Amino acid sequence: MALLAKAGGGIYTKTADIAADLVGKVEIGIPEDDPRNPAVVADNVGDNVGDVAGMGADIFDSYVASTVAAMLLGTSLFASDSLLQARYTLFPLVLCTLGIVASLIGIQFVRVGKSGKPGRALNSGTIITCAIFGVLAAATVLLGSYNLGVLWATLAGLITGVVIGFTSDYYTSSDFHPVMETARVSGSGAAINIITGYSYGLVSIVPSIIGIVMATLFSYYLAELSGISGIYGVGISAVGMLAVSGMIVSSDAYGPIVDNARGIAEMAGMSQEVIDTTDVLDAAGNTAKAITKGFAVSAAALTVLALFAAYAEVVGARGVELTISLRQPIVVAGVLLGAVTPPLFSALTMLSVTHNAFDMIEEVRRQFRERPGILAGTEKPDYAACVGLAAQGALTSLVVPALLAIVLPVLVGFILGPEALGGFLGGSIFTGVIFALLMSNAGGLWDNAKKFIESGGFGGPRSDAHKASVVGDTVGDPFKDTAGPSLNTLITVMSLVSSLFAPIIAACHLL
Amino acid sequence: MALLAKAGGGIYTKTADIAADLVGKVEIGIPEDDPRNPAVVADNVGDNVGDVAGMGADIFDSYVASTVAAMLLGTSLFASDSLLQARYTLFPLVLCTLGIVASLIGIQFVRVGKSGKPGRALNSGTIITCAIFGVLAAATVLLGSYNLGVLWATLAGLITGVVIGFTSDYYTSSDFHPVMETARVSGSGAAINIITGYSYGLVSIVPSIIGIVMATLFSYYLAELSGISGIYGVGISAVGMLAVSGMIVSSDAYGPIVDNARGIAEMAGMSQEVIDTTDVLDAAGNTAKAITKGFAVSAAALTVLALFAAYAEVVGARGVELTISLRQPIVVAGVLLGAVTPPLFSALTMLSVTHNAFDMIEEVRRQFRERPGILAGTEKPDYAACVGLAAQGALTSLVVPALLAIVLPVLVGFILGPEALGGFLGGSIFTGVIFALLMSNAGGLWDNAKKFIESGGFGGPRSDAHKASVVGDTVGDPFKDTAGPSLNTLITVMSLVSSLFAPIIAACHLL
Repeated sequence: MALLAKAGGGIYTKTADIAADLVGKVEIGIPEDDPRNPAVVADNVGDNVGDVAGMGADIFDSYVASTVAAMLLGTSLFASDSLLQARYTLFPLVLCTLGIVASLIGIQFVRVGKSGKPGRALNSGTIITCAIFGVLAAATVLLGSYNLGVLWATLAGLITGVVIGFTSDYYTSSDFHPVMETARVSGSGAAINIITGYSYGLVSIVPSIIGIVMATLFSYYLAELSGISGIYGVGISAVGMLAVSGMIVSSDAYGPIVDNARGIAEMAGMSQEVIDTTDVLDAAGNTAKAITKGFAVSAAALTVLALFAAYAEVVGARGVELTISLRQPIVVAGVLLGAVTPPLFSALTMLSVTHNAFDMIEEVRRQFRERPGILAGTEKPDYAACVGLAAQGALTSLVVPALLAIVLPVLVGFILGPEALGGFLGGSIFTGVIFALLMSNAGGLWDNAKKFIESGGFGGPRSDAHKASVVGDTVGDPFKDTAGPSLNTLITVMSLVSSLFAPIIAACHLL
Repeated sequence: MALLAKAGGGIYTKTADIAADLVGKVEIGIPEDDPRNPAVVADNVGDNVGDVAGMGADIFDSYVASTVAAMLLGTSLFASDSLLQARYTLFPLVLCTLGIVASLIGIQFVRVGKSGKPGRALNSGTIITCAIFGVLAAATVLLGSYNLGVLWATLAGLITGVVIGFTSDYYTSSDFHPVMETARVSGSGAAINIITGYSYGLVSIVPSIIGIVMATLFSYYLAELSGISGIYGVGISAVGMLAVSGMIVSSDAYGPIVDNARGIAEMAGMSQEVIDTTDVLDAAGNTAKAITKGFAVSAAALTVLALFAAYAEVVGARGVELTISLRQPIVVAGVLLGAVTPPLFSALTMLSVTHNAFDMIEEVRRQFRERPGILAGTEKPDYAACVGLAAQGALTSLVVPALLAIVLPVLVGFILGPEALGGFLGGSIFTGVIFALLMSNAGGLWDNAKKFIESGGFGGPRSDAHKASVVGDTVGDPFKDTAGPSLNTLITVMSLVSSLFAPIIAACHLL
């Protein structure tokens, strides 16, 4: 479901976005959200389909997957004491409840003064939510006399989530060096803008990965030291990271909503002051989107690490002891095959975007050609044709990637066996996380570098630097809204499919 | 050494290339290799430093490393029979000798008819060399009554090398769909060119990885079935792939030599016919470069897999049995940290390129400003200043990446222990191979898409499509000549450092 909503929505929204921009801004020279452009409505619909519904579905998906994974791991604890077992199996649900309460309180703190920065208000709302959640979790563990290990795991996940969120902020907000540097070099052309933004995108992976590693190690070893299963600790830390997702999803929905507000202000011909205000909101929305994407990716990584453990448990329950050692060539083969899946998946979704955008550009050109009244403003363009085209294209081009996510793990499992499948899942997690972070952050960075130049920096609108930054932004669009965020869904789906088929694969495989 | 030659050379050559292009072509509007541009000589020097010396050093480095790794693995065979042991320890050297003989014969077949395609002649030379080598290896194994497993391993490596080479050819030659499609969509702007080229670059990883997986599995299991160590088989297959490197290095050197021939023809003001001929040679050279880079990356992957086994052997010899299981969180932590090293390394080298290019652009602008006679053609520009600037910048900016390659594995080993270091090496191999293939192939693809448009396709020179393809080419330059090819050196260096420190790390580490 989330794969469809996220990847399909991503293809849909960027098809419309690129087509609207290329024909409107570049060929005809009308503003970004001019109502004469038939692709504009499809673009605005797409922002909601891809970013609100898709990302909401995606985080919700990770939320459910991490909770279920932690509960599954909880059932294997304390086999001798069914009351204790039930308490730890239900603990993830307790955390979720606390997270919802904390989010409801935290959202009240998102208040912007007249001169305040909206991005800062969102961030402080997130921090307050996390703090409240931490206090509630500590109180619950202490009063409910749970093992202290689960508290450490929860806090490790929560803190890592915040750290990763602010790393994304550093790499994608125009208040810091990477965006400024990318904007500055844009004067030397689109290529330098691309190389610089891409390089910072690569660098931005490092702190998040270190955060995921720290969360994994801390939650595992602190849980073990407190006398509870380390893998259960990793599962709990993913729940801890995602428990505040009520707050995260609302921050995230904020982005596309203000993006559309700006578009509607421009389409309705409102005053420049209104458009400027929405521009500020829009830039903050981009950073909020990048933060929540970082959150979603990392939580997916921890969830999938827990699901990975669950997979090994399921196979182990069939009497096959899995070691998944990198010293076995079959495991290395699995890892290499798994590692190549996320790049392939993102390439296929991006190629769909350009392919569908071409169809839509043709449609827009046809409308302008056959009905000259549209450009003159006397005739209403056929918005519905563009919306339909984008939706149909997105669904058709999803078939191959969706099949990939389901067929590949099954094939690897039945041909190369359960250990190779373990390696395959591992490999897909490693590169999946790396490419998802790279693409989300680089995309957000290019977008805000463009916005900074549009707001008057380094030459301002209509300068060469601005043209170069528009190229970066257009490259970043499918990166951050199509390929990047659908990767965490890909790895979650592949893990679930593997766990599902694990019992059959353990019993019968070729090698 | 190879790390210095390859990464340093890569930074050097692209600094000069980008600076020369940006000031010359874009700012002043003089042709690519105009002698009035002070950065032109640095650019031509750089082609040799980076591509001939660097790639030669790199392949030679893999060649030596794979031979040594296979010999090391050979010493652990047949502990009871010292004669047999010596035979299998020396067998990698025998393969190298056969490869040199085959290359010397094969090079004689590189003959181009007047209307023949030079790329095809190079390819058929490579095929003939491989065929001769295969026959020689088979004869040696049969007559010398070696275990048949080593023949299968040799052939598995050789065939995989050829398959990977031709995959690179498919994705980077203008005779096939990916380059044509990228050139076709360039009419819609630089962003679409970048997205399409990058996507095909991602797709191009898949067949090579499947090739590496097949070579690993075939050489391992066929060696085991023939009653010889499977890991020794993997080592031998790397040697088999690299034994024909005499032929490969000469094909590879061909690329930059004709690239320079074109430059010199233009600088010397030769007739258009000469320039057109060198253009054809240049495009073939680009594909030859991509093929040999694919060869180098895959051979490095196999070598490092063998070195990886050697690392585990060394630690095992200290009485510590390594499993490096992905079910241990410390190993997963190591893999994640290792996986992030190649992207970080390539980002640092690419940022150095843009940074140094800016310094050089300043120098070129200064020369044009202070000595107007240069542009008028009456005064000789100060070529030496640019050469010096590029060389100094390249060496300075190498310090951090080189330290990274040496310090990181040591840090991971001493803090997280030998199993995490095993995971770290594994992770760096997985993403190292993926990013190296992506960057080499995408870079070659963009370059040839530009060349195809320059030769008159899809609008021809000075069209909008051409401008867009120049952006792709400029992005691809540091991809294919700086970041991509230095990654296999990075992973080789990290493996060697790890094996070197393995005994101390096994004895003393923090976790």
